Amino acid sequence: MDIDFYRNNNISVDLAIEAHDIVRGQLGTEIPGAVVDRHKFPSATVTTVKVVEEQAAQMMGKPVGTYITIEAPAIRDNNRIAQKEVAEVLAQQLSSLFNLPENANILIVGLGNRQATPDSLGPKVVEQTIVTRHLYRYAPEELKGGMRSVSAMAPGVLGITGIESAEIIKGVVERIQPELIIAIDALAAGSVDRIGTTIQIADTGISPGSGIGNKRTGINRETMGVLTIAIGVPTVVNAAIIAQVTLEHFLEKLKTNPMLNQIQQSVMPDYAQGIINDILSPFGGNLMVTPKEVDSLILDTSKIVAGGISMALHPAISTEEYSMYLN
Amino acid sequence: MDIDFYRNNNISVDLAIEAHDIVRGQLGTEIPGAVVDRHKFPSATVTTVKVVEEQAAQMMGKPVGTYITIEAPAIRDNNRIAQKEVAEVLAQQLSSLFNLPENANILIVGLGNRQATPDSLGPKVVEQTIVTRHLYRYAPEELKGGMRSVSAMAPGVLGITGIESAEIIKGVVERIQPELIIAIDALAAGSVDRIGTTIQIADTGISPGSGIGNKRTGINRETMGVLTIAIGVPTVVNAAIIAQVTLEHFLEKLKTNPMLNQIQQSVMPDYAQGIINDILSPFGGNLMVTPKEVDSLILDTSKIVAGGISMALHPAISTEEYSMYLN
Amino acid sequence: MDIDFYRNNNISVDLAIEAHDIVRGQLGTEIPGAVVDRHKFPSATVTTVKVVEEQAAQMMGKPVGTYITIEAPAIRDNNRIAQKEVAEVLAQQLSSLFNLPENANILIVGLGNRQATPDSLGPKVVEQTIVTRHLYRYAPEELKGGMRSVSAMAPGVLGITGIESAEIIKGVVERIQPELIIAIDALAAGSVDRIGTTIQIADTGISPGSGIGNKRTGINRETMGVLTIAIGVPTVVNAAIIAQVTLEHFLEKLKTNPMLNQIQQSVMPDYAQGIINDILSPFGGNLMVTPKEVDSLILDTSKIVAGGISMALHPAISTEEYSMYLN
Amino acid sequence: MDIDFYRNNNISVDLAIEAHDIVRGQLGTEIPGAVVDRHKFPSATVTTVKVVEEQAAQMMGKPVGTYITIEAPAIRDNNRIAQKEVAEVLAQQLSSLFNLPENANILIVGLGNRQATPDSLGPKVVEQTIVTRHLYRYAPEELKGGMRSVSAMAPGVLGITGIESAEIIKGVVERIQPELIIAIDALAAGSVDRIGTTIQIADTGISPGSGIGNKRTGINRETMGVLTIAIGVPTVVNAAIIAQVTLEHFLEKLKTNPMLNQIQQSVMPDYAQGIINDILSPFGGNLMVTPKEVDSLILDTSKIVAGGISMALHPAISTEEYSMYLN
Repeated sequence: MDIDFYRNNNISVDLAIEAHDIVRGQLGTEIPGAVVDRHKFPSATVTTVKVVEEQAAQMMGKPVGTYITIEAPAIRDNNRIAQKEVAEVLAQQLSSLFNLPENANILIVGLGNRQATPDSLGPKVVEQTIVTRHLYRYAPEELKGGMRSVSAMAPGVLGITGIESAEIIKGVVERIQPELIIAIDALAAGSVDRIGTTIQIADTGISPGSGIGNKRTGINRETMGVLTIAIGVPTVVNAAIIAQVTLEHFLEKLKTNPMLNQIQQSVMPDYAQGIINDILSPFGGNLMVTPKEVDSLILDTSKIVAGGISMALHPAISTEEYSMYLN
Repeated sequence: MDIDFYRNNNISVDLAIEAHDIVRGQLGTEIPGAVVDRHKFPSATVTTVKVVEEQAAQMMGKPVGTYITIEAPAIRDNNRIAQKEVAEVLAQQLSSLFNLPENANILIVGLGNRQATPDSLGPKVVEQTIVTRHLYRYAPEELKGGMRSVSAMAPGVLGITGIESAEIIKGVVERIQPELIIAIDALAAGSVDRIGTTIQIADTGISPGSGIGNKRTGINRETMGVLTIAIGVPTVVNAAIIAQVTLEHFLEKLKTNPMLNQIQQSVMPDYAQGIINDILSPFGGNLMVTPKEVDSLILDTSKIVAGGISMALHPAISTEEYSMYLN
Repeated sequence: MDIDFYRNNNISVDLAIEAHDIVRGQLGTEIPGAVVDRHKFPSATVTTVKVVEEQAAQMMGKPVGTYITIEAPAIRDNNRIAQKEVAEVLAQQLSSLFNLPENANILIVGLGNRQATPDSLGPKVVEQTIVTRHLYRYAPEELKGGMRSVSAMAPGVLGITGIESAEIIKGVVERIQPELIIAIDALAAGSVDRIGTTIQIADTGISPGSGIGNKRTGINRETMGVLTIAIGVPTVVNAAIIAQVTLEHFLEKLKTNPMLNQIQQSVMPDYAQGIINDILSPFGGNLMVTPKEVDSLILDTSKIVAGGISMALHPAISTEEYSMYLN
Repeated sequence: MDIDFYRNNNISVDLAIEAHDIVRGQLGTEIPGAVVDRHKFPSATVTTVKVVEEQAAQMMGKPVGTYITIEAPAIRDNNRIAQKEVAEVLAQQLSSLFNLPENANILIVGLGNRQATPDSLGPKVVEQTIVTRHLYRYAPEELKGGMRSVSAMAPGVLGITGIESAEIIKGVVERIQPELIIAIDALAAGSVDRIGTTIQIADTGISPGSGIGNKRTGINRETMGVLTIAIGVPTVVNAAIIAQVTLEHFLEKLKTNPMLNQIQQSVMPDYAQGIINDILSPFGGNLMVTPKEVDSLILDTSKIVAGGISMALHPAISTEEYSMYLN
């Protein structure tokens, strides 16, 4: 795949692991200033991409920071035992990104549109979250030992509120002063394989243009003034990518024929973009590919994410019990 | 009815017209510092209570300001022609409380819990509201003539977000700086007759302790720094009031018997409160009386309120078309 | 309490245990033809009322059959460990009412109105139910050993569909021919104490006039042609009962005064009903008392009921895992 | 486009107008046994395809019957005045397909999954429908003149109920014996242009394999025993079609180069299908392309369809008022 295609067409690659693989493919070598590490767990593979230097950030189109990708086909497989293991891996990885006292305040933000199923992951996670901030100030000391102070909000989307999500969040953050923000969002992936198999955790928050909704202002440490961890789950692929990849695969096959190989070089730049525009034009870039059973995918994923967050934030919640503490 | 009962029991009388009637009943004369005016329309009666002086405010437990009560049985009667007329009356009365340039920013706030039907009026009105703020800056001048810049939010309730509604709203208000806030809330009435027949508009916003949710911080000009109009619709009556009124009616009937009349004087203070506590104890003061078909009541009312707001804010929306502009 | 009052006013006593206690109170002795048995569990007390003879059925206004009442304050207390125990007790008691082969077909029916929170328990349980009927015919034998064939439906309410629930269910039952129907419904209790503390299981199904919605045709073995177990959970109390009980408590206190005692006898029949009618008239008998936080009550209860059903029907689901198998 | 592709890949072409155009394109002449008629209205073009002979039915893969297609970009344009005109056209066209006495019973069936926005059109239309059957038997004669007896149901989807929609509907139809069924469903179109611009009305009901959910049994006169009109609105395109059309467009462009033209003939059959399978494999054929703002598309469309149905069924509802009669 050609990252220039995405850039030229304003199709964001939300997953750092995909941006990394594209750029490394173009370079033919490891990306200077980016460090990759991989671990295998029974139900998941965890890949950490640390974008250490500004040059790597520029090449990948991703800010300097840590991007953890959990790859787990169990998310899609309706295997609840394995899903529980994925939630534990998520809890563990999430915990590695912050170091907070037990009385810290945490704000959970569910981005996206609760009315449009493929974009409803964030609000669904908020629904499943155990909120304690309002109880916390009255709680006895011994209880506080096991539960942190958590609040949660789903700011809605621009088309429904008339207000950018980042404005709403910033307003609330200024008033309640959390020590950590965890923002959950549905992502657009670069490949159908990613839907329902991948969770990304990033300590860089959410950057302009990411997510399947157009959140134009970033939600990150720079804009919010506090560590902002984003948890993103691919639920759609932009339809333009399906068209693009179809052409690429076709041309790839033509390569085996030497005469055709030469044609590929010449025709591709001329035709590809025009064709995609023709086919998808009525909705601009706003056509999304999503599984027909997206509702059960979103429901299962929201439980994994909400469960993982609860285990990471509240030491008192054991892995045996976590599913009991979903709403 | 005895307002001391409500005060002693922390049962708020949300409607100024009810507070006014109780106090006037106790005084036996008009309340000094409060001015009442009444107009009849085909489908509604409009009563304006102006609390002019602080003394009247103290007696009624309502801040100085203007309280407009629309009484219209049509709200409950599923008569859509009459409901349209009520929306027009609401638009007219609402307009009388503000004087804004055509390019003013207005923030609609839907208070309450979308998950609990009797408390979901505010969020439902937000769903029905035409939001234009995000379009407004790109709209051509001629369009702006007919549509004001409107944004809308439903902040949720403390038990679900862990954050007081007033904190969330204040945060957003500081960032988007509206010239007017209109806050919609489900109210607890002092009588079952009020459910589905009454709309209150108040330029004093929402005061601590009002509404069927406990919104502890006020949402008004004082806290928000801008004119805040509250639109409140009774959807419930506190169960304690049912018990209280039952006893009062019973004792009233006993009065016809002179011997019993004397008993009434002595036993009431001793018994009434204890009985009510006994019966309703498991949920403290938090039991509400609501019609079984509260869902259709809330739906119809939300259309009247959203329609009235749209006609008041957007001169371009005619009364013939208003129902087309509900979402 | 006086069961004649309920009968005269068409207020049903949905719980057999309440009907039993009222009748026994009136008789001053055990009811002939009704057998009561009680067991204590750590988180719940289980009372079984067997209405054995027609005479007892007549007196109690409940058909001949077995009524199991689980009383467990944990349902309301937001204690999830105890709620799990209640689900186990429910599973056990439910299992005692049927004896089915492993390949039996079971139809779960969620009665009530999903749009009105206090009446939404049935549809919520259906949402949480693991449905397997469509998978079952393709499943390998070894899987079938642990999971029965389950289907689920929420027929809606008359005001929204224009069709009686019983008609819809009967039509489906004739086509899919289940060996067992389990119907879940929100009930109206005779006392506020019952809300969020009680679950009733009855092998008599649902009789005309029961439930908080008016389901005029019964849903039981007689109408459906197959064993129909009803699981009912009180979520409301009729407002007329609050008024009635208030008067009764008041008059009870007057009894201590001999002169007043005599008055009670004479005035009660004359006044009580008229007062209640006056106060509640605008909505006839259709005013319900419900806790303000009815949404979380319904959510917690639906998980207990759906979890209990899943454990009773699917031997493969262990009590440790059951909460993982809620949707 | 090549209809063999769709057939080979089990991708249904839900719109008769698309099937017609494909087959006519292949034939190079009008289809024998199919009659096409076109009318223009201010906001819509109406094309009627009558499949008169069995041969035409075979070629088009559509049963003998009348297929009316309303093409109206206004559906997508958020122009509510034009949307009202589309509802009127729909009412008119729908009325042309039935001839019923004023006291006829009509059953509205909303197919699809309310939890998955792109598939939720049917249930949303049911929500907006005015249901009168339960009132009708008590209504005075003069009222009956203007309103027909209408009931409505949303049977849910197989994955959630475990029961095929057709089984549930058939069961209900046998009990309530309607004279007409109107079934509403979201469709999968053959082109992105169709999304939010097209409504199809067919007196052949719904055939196996149609719709975006797999409704394996037909819902039509044959299975239901009564005239069954289907109203279908494309809300998605199968992702395989995007890939297919992309390749076709590309190869079309290659034709201008004579040498390449020859290649096209040879490579297409070998490569195309394999490529599509590769790209979309994880979800089989179940990936759908849908606009990001599918929620507002579904909401607007459901009002047009419900409004059109109400105007067609209830003579008493004028076109001026129809939007007032949406729920």
